[in-house]
Amino acid sequence: MNRRVIAFLLGHILLLEAAFMLPALLISFFLNENNAAMAFVWTILLTTAVGVILTRIRPASMVFYAAEGFVVTALSWIAISMFGALPFWISGAIPNYVDCFFETVSGFTTTGASILTDVEALPRGLLYWRSFTHWLGGMGVLVFLLAVVSVGKGSGYSLHLLQAESPGPDVGKMTPKLKQSAKILYLIYIALTVLEIILLLAGGMSVFDSFCTAFGTAGTGGFGVKNDSMAGYSHYLQTVVTIFMALFGVNFNIYFLMLIRSWKSVVRNEELWGYLGIMIGSIVLITINIAPTMQYNWGEALHQSAFQVSSVMTTTGFSTIDYNVWPQFSRSLLAVLMVIGASAGSTGGGVKVVRVIIVFKLLRKELIRMLHPRAVHAVRMSEKIVDNKVGKGVNVFMAAYFSVFIFSFLLVSFDNMSLETNVTAVVSCLSNIGPGLDVVGPAGNYSQFSDVSKLILSADMLFGRLEFFPMILLFSPSLWRKKI
Amino acid sequence: MNRRVIAFLLGHILLLEAAFMLPALLISFFLNENNAAMAFVWTILLTTAVGVILTRIRPASMVFYAAEGFVVTALSWIAISMFGALPFWISGAIPNYVDCFFETVSGFTTTGASILTDVEALPRGLLYWRSFTHWLGGMGVLVFLLAVVSVGKGSGYSLHLLQAESPGPDVGKMTPKLKQSAKILYLIYIALTVLEIILLLAGGMSVFDSFCTAFGTAGTGGFGVKNDSMAGYSHYLQTVVTIFMALFGVNFNIYFLMLIRSWKSVVRNEELWGYLGIMIGSIVLITINIAPTMQYNWGEALHQSAFQVSSVMTTTGFSTIDYNVWPQFSRSLLAVLMVIGASAGSTGGGVKVVRVIIVFKLLRKELIRMLHPRAVHAVRMSEKIVDNKVGKGVNVFMAAYFSVFIFSFLLVSFDNMSLETNVTAVVSCLSNIGPGLDVVGPAGNYSQFSDVSKLILSADMLFGRLEFFPMILLFSPSLWRKKI
Repeated sequence: MNRRVIAFLLGHILLLEAAFMLPALLISFFLNENNAAMAFVWTILLTTAVGVILTRIRPASMVFYAAEGFVVTALSWIAISMFGALPFWISGAIPNYVDCFFETVSGFTTTGASILTDVEALPRGLLYWRSFTHWLGGMGVLVFLLAVVSVGKGSGYSLHLLQAESPGPDVGKMTPKLKQSAKILYLIYIALTVLEIILLLAGGMSVFDSFCTAFGTAGTGGFGVKNDSMAGYSHYLQTVVTIFMALFGVNFNIYFLMLIRSWKSVVRNEELWGYLGIMIGSIVLITINIAPTMQYNWGEALHQSAFQVSSVMTTTGFSTIDYNVWPQFSRSLLAVLMVIGASAGSTGGGVKVVRVIIVFKLLRKELIRMLHPRAVHAVRMSEKIVDNKVGKGVNVFMAAYFSVFIFSFLLVSFDNMSLETNVTAVVSCLSNIGPGLDVVGPAGNYSQFSDVSKLILSADMLFGRLEFFPMILLFSPSLWRKKI
Repeated sequence: MNRRVIAFLLGHILLLEAAFMLPALLISFFLNENNAAMAFVWTILLTTAVGVILTRIRPASMVFYAAEGFVVTALSWIAISMFGALPFWISGAIPNYVDCFFETVSGFTTTGASILTDVEALPRGLLYWRSFTHWLGGMGVLVFLLAVVSVGKGSGYSLHLLQAESPGPDVGKMTPKLKQSAKILYLIYIALTVLEIILLLAGGMSVFDSFCTAFGTAGTGGFGVKNDSMAGYSHYLQTVVTIFMALFGVNFNIYFLMLIRSWKSVVRNEELWGYLGIMIGSIVLITINIAPTMQYNWGEALHQSAFQVSSVMTTTGFSTIDYNVWPQFSRSLLAVLMVIGASAGSTGGGVKVVRVIIVFKLLRKELIRMLHPRAVHAVRMSEKIVDNKVGKGVNVFMAAYFSVFIFSFLLVSFDNMSLETNVTAVVSCLSNIGPGLDVVGPAGNYSQFSDVSKLILSADMLFGRLEFFPMILLFSPSLWRKKI
């Protein structure tokens, strides 16, 4: 394990985080939120100091394997969460540091699970920082580092970082140069965010709300600035958010392919059609299910159905309504969408549509093999053959999800909450969704869990966002014994 | 598809079922349960008639592939459930045929889920038949057919039938001759059942109760003859049942290895130690958890913990206590044990310990591969290398479980029961457990579901018992187009 290069990269990430806190500091400063402003000043100073010390460590070599990539990624995410939690704690806005850490991990991992009961009581600067963690975590801090900063010239280390931080079974190689790819990713991300802000402003939303809402949408995070989430906004504004949540759940490679006018590749992309098909199908089914039962007119039913499906499937977690009162079929369908999640290579969480498609295809292949034992049948995805490695990767992902789920579920049970609360809280954190059911439902929050459970759920959010292996490796003793 | 050989074997299965109904007929006859006795007479006549007609179909060839094995197995289980349900319906004891079918499928698949609210009101003959379906379904009707009857001399068809009906990822080849293996399996099964009956009788249990309880234990089914399941019996009787539930959850190959004194193979069997380890560990943890909370003394806590763990892990479903009032950690641990289930090659259901062990080993292998990309590391199980085929089979099994779960869960939701009820009902049926939580908890039953949901849950029990592929293949259109 090349510890020096790990420390070196970690230092850069912390310096980056300190810089990203400046806008929040300015907001608190100009709005005379003195406690918050001072908290940001102290946090920025401390983070910068640690960052400078770490970047002083010159790595003897830039030897960098996949293992190093995983470790840097896991440690970076833990570090930015630990430092990012400080403003909430130092300002006294959230008195318990474990709560601050939970809230910040939830922000960076774009989960959107909260321990706050009264969001509107938080100073504006802190609210801005809370929403901004979604935006930063959505596309990934290491990807950002790759896109804008030149750190060393290690062979292949950009690839390993991208692989460890990007969601989904494969890394989209948009261009042969990874730095170029990271840049294009972020430009598309920024462009979509700006477009949403403009459309929200056009609908009469305040500047502060527009920025924070756009950050929450872009990262598919779900932290809002109002206690009633999106319920108080106009139908126009809700519709803008519906559309943008859906857009941020699309694999960003698709946008790149559109930019270079490679329409054929877009049309052939099976995950895109799977994603849109599941989404539109669910919207239609829920509309038909809720319109007569809830006595909505069809337009209203469609509006509510579309918002909630888009929010849940992309694992954003915004809400306009308490869907816990909907008929059971709609609730069950939403629960299934939560587990499926968004597309690979998007900012959304969950198992990802592409994995679900591959699982079904592997199953179909097995059935064909049983009927025609001698036939050769390859699983294809978007006309490319899915090789054994990808298929195995998907299975290993499922196994990891299952294993981490079991242990977390058992440990969280010591708090003596209901089974429904425990199961949905763990699934919601692992899939980076936010709300669950019962105590952690859309109208509730995570404040009733013990500190130990909050730390376990924080770990689950990181497990889910980094797709298990970076975090699992971090806890594996043999890793640290390994010499480079 | 060789349809004639399928019909031919199906006919034999029905004749066998008719013969197995005779003891129940005699019980009803001697106890003057006239409706039940007449119901058995009509059912036996009808089943025999259909059986005779089908066995008249002489197959042109005995060509028999895995596909035929799957189809025969799936059709046999559906047919014996349809005919086995008739006595309940014709006697008027259960007025709705769908309920009768559900109850019979639940019996044969050794699930033990019931739609009855008052078990003790049922005539004795019907109660006996209900418990006997567990015994027959536990080891498998086709295995029985192979063991005692000589049907044709098809090449390899015994193997395909055994593979389709036996639970677990591999068929234990105890002896080179499969007929021999099937016979030994059944002899061990009968010996253990008789031993349990003797020990129950020794404890003062009535003859009728002893037989029915032993059938329910041997098949790890869980149908009892008392409304309070096992709660009313003495501690001695409960302890006998505890031990035998655990014994019937062991892979039967282990008993064969003990018989031939191959102790080394027994000691090296990883699933056995995994099964016992999880079971004993869970008993200890739950004892420690419930003793102070529920104010049991340690002996009582250990007794209750052992009974419930043994019952749940082997997916039997007997109970001595309403464990829904236990602290949440114990309830969660029981829920996890439900999913894990018993050993492969036992009469118990669930995912099976061996699959869970293989999943963890595949995960570990993947982690090692990430740390040492060039190292060659094979997954071993009981000192044998787990080849890719087995690993893939385990993954495909998980994918099938997940897929069937999603569809059943969504369809059952139309009944508007709670999410906890729907999730646990589907898992309980898929894993052949019996009780779930909430409406279908240990104190409740499945009578509140609609007929459509009962049919879906019946299908789930068959999916689970036959481990998906026979049933999935049955519903695949391309199967029936296939000519031999």
